[in-house]
Amino acid sequence: MGRELDRLHCIMRTTREFIKELKANGLDGLIVSSLANISYLTKTLNPDAYLLASLKVLTYFTDSRYSEEAKIKLKDSANLKNINGSVFKSIARACLNLDLKKVGFEERHLPYAEYKKIKEYLKAKAYLIPTYGILEGMRMVKGPQELAKIRKALKITALAIEFIQDFIRPGVRELEIAAEWERFIRYQGAIGSAFDIIVASGASSAFPHHAPTSRKIKDNDIILIDAGVDYLGYKSDLTRVFFLGKINGLARRIYALVLKAQAMAIKKIKPGEKANVIDAASRRYITNKGYGNYFTHGLGHGVGLDIHEGPSISGKSEEILRGGMVFTVEPAVYLPGKFGIRVEDMVLVTKNGCEVLSGLINK
Amino acid sequence: MGRELDRLHCIMRTTREFIKELKANGLDGLIVSSLANISYLTKTLNPDAYLLASLKVLTYFTDSRYSEEAKIKLKDSANLKNINGSVFKSIARACLNLDLKKVGFEERHLPYAEYKKIKEYLKAKAYLIPTYGILEGMRMVKGPQELAKIRKALKITALAIEFIQDFIRPGVRELEIAAEWERFIRYQGAIGSAFDIIVASGASSAFPHHAPTSRKIKDNDIILIDAGVDYLGYKSDLTRVFFLGKINGLARRIYALVLKAQAMAIKKIKPGEKANVIDAASRRYITNKGYGNYFTHGLGHGVGLDIHEGPSISGKSEEILRGGMVFTVEPAVYLPGKFGIRVEDMVLVTKNGCEVLSGLINK
Repeated sequence: MGRELDRLHCIMRTTREFIKELKANGLDGLIVSSLANISYLTKTLNPDAYLLASLKVLTYFTDSRYSEEAKIKLKDSANLKNINGSVFKSIARACLNLDLKKVGFEERHLPYAEYKKIKEYLKAKAYLIPTYGILEGMRMVKGPQELAKIRKALKITALAIEFIQDFIRPGVRELEIAAEWERFIRYQGAIGSAFDIIVASGASSAFPHHAPTSRKIKDNDIILIDAGVDYLGYKSDLTRVFFLGKINGLARRIYALVLKAQAMAIKKIKPGEKANVIDAASRRYITNKGYGNYFTHGLGHGVGLDIHEGPSISGKSEEILRGGMVFTVEPAVYLPGKFGIRVEDMVLVTKNGCEVLSGLINK
Repeated sequence: MGRELDRLHCIMRTTREFIKELKANGLDGLIVSSLANISYLTKTLNPDAYLLASLKVLTYFTDSRYSEEAKIKLKDSANLKNINGSVFKSIARACLNLDLKKVGFEERHLPYAEYKKIKEYLKAKAYLIPTYGILEGMRMVKGPQELAKIRKALKITALAIEFIQDFIRPGVRELEIAAEWERFIRYQGAIGSAFDIIVASGASSAFPHHAPTSRKIKDNDIILIDAGVDYLGYKSDLTRVFFLGKINGLARRIYALVLKAQAMAIKKIKPGEKANVIDAASRRYITNKGYGNYFTHGLGHGVGLDIHEGPSISGKSEEILRGGMVFTVEPAVYLPGKFGIRVEDMVLVTKNGCEVLSGLINK
């Protein structure tokens, strides 16, 4: 019962803040089409739903495949509409019934065709206003219940990394490593992977997002694993590099360099700091050592209900860090045709600095 | 080498047909944002890319995470643009450089914000025209290489169903069944699951899309498994129901009824038949037996590069069947609070009727 009360309080607090945001944006309501944003507001997980939020009520649209389960999970927190026909017509009708005039929609999460249909059905009795970042902004700072799920996702990831390290040996295939990972995390209670696991061995480690293949691990290989789990909707994201047998001199130097670059970024993390300063801390060090051109992506990204969310930690990011933000720190050096080294941890911005949430996982 | 030639011929044939479609739609080009459509045209698999197709050339946009691998896989079949900045600006610039005037975009696969950005960057020098179904229409009829991959995906699924049947016993959890499935299919060469596996035991089987939980299987449970695999981008989709121990009379009757309903639909499948007639064949039978209200979704859907694609097999579908179409036939009866029974097979429309591609998998 305590848990249920916590859940309700959490929904209420989120809802209050959300209504304030809607008003600040001059909106009577918002059509929420991002599934992560729907999860955030309703504490449900459903791969096919829409939500209409007014200043007074949430209306949840889904079809018969999901409506029976949604009924149980939503309880009284939202009105459930079981769609049999056009969901866009149903959303427009709900807008008009609620007498909404200025209805926001999530421009990055609504296909053009869906926007067009809702607009048609509204018959100019309400205006559709493109928005971005209302809920994404709120989601950047994690609440205690969210943090608990992220910590649990990382706990499972830590166990999985330990397990998989024992499994990796010459002769096993990249796909088999992925197979054992996928099995292990579910026995630990994960819903599944947070994203397609990357298992990149040998020269493939130089491809930042290599998908596992049937390639067999060889003696003296470098194996890069980038993986995360989904625990009740919340994600983890972690990269470790394993060396099998002898490590060549260049790989050893690059590995040390990447670790150092990561430590330099982590040292800078605290509330009030600019995200691009964190990126620069790693990047400058790698550049000074002559490998700047081989660090081809941003330093990190927020993680939560989405595997990639705010804040972005890159040279272009305008974000200012705040306590409660959770993001990755993942400097890398990719040497095409040779190998790639990336080390990725997740951090939580605290009052005076940061906590490395994945700090107990060996590097 | 023979394989490589086959691949090139296949790309050429597809390209010729595609150009004909573009011309028939009065377009100089098409911005392809559906990842399945991009795979279809380029034979690549990449979770983050855009394609601009003109009547003469394909331009493939991706970023540094994927560009090195894309370079190898595309060879000369498309120009590769490695994006560092706005992909939308880059797409617009390519449209202008190619002197395109009427550029289609995929209205169901392009978020409103992306449409708006490309439009801005085009500065009224080219017109954006919403399209739907150009490539989806072509994709409905499968070529021999596509069919081979679908057959392989089903072969793996058949082995996995046999394996998982041996694993299911009282005491194991739904999530553990999912775990073993995920491991097994990768050892058989699948990239992964085609969609989140459904393992629904006991009363949960009445939820059409139940996600696996930590519930333990009990004696005399009904267990519904709906799963499929991804083999080189092509999917399979299959549902089987297992009975543990004693089957109660109602469940036995409903199971027989669903099987019969499926057989009645399959008998009707042939080129020239309407998709809604196939749906009606199952639905009428279930309705006549008094369970029409408990069959709450369409009879089936096409399967290929997407797990749900054309043709839709439902009462509302206007589609006419053609040889080479591949789709599911999945009648069901869901009795809330009691149990659900769904049986799903995949069929290929042949010259005179159909082949049940999953016909060798026990029911």
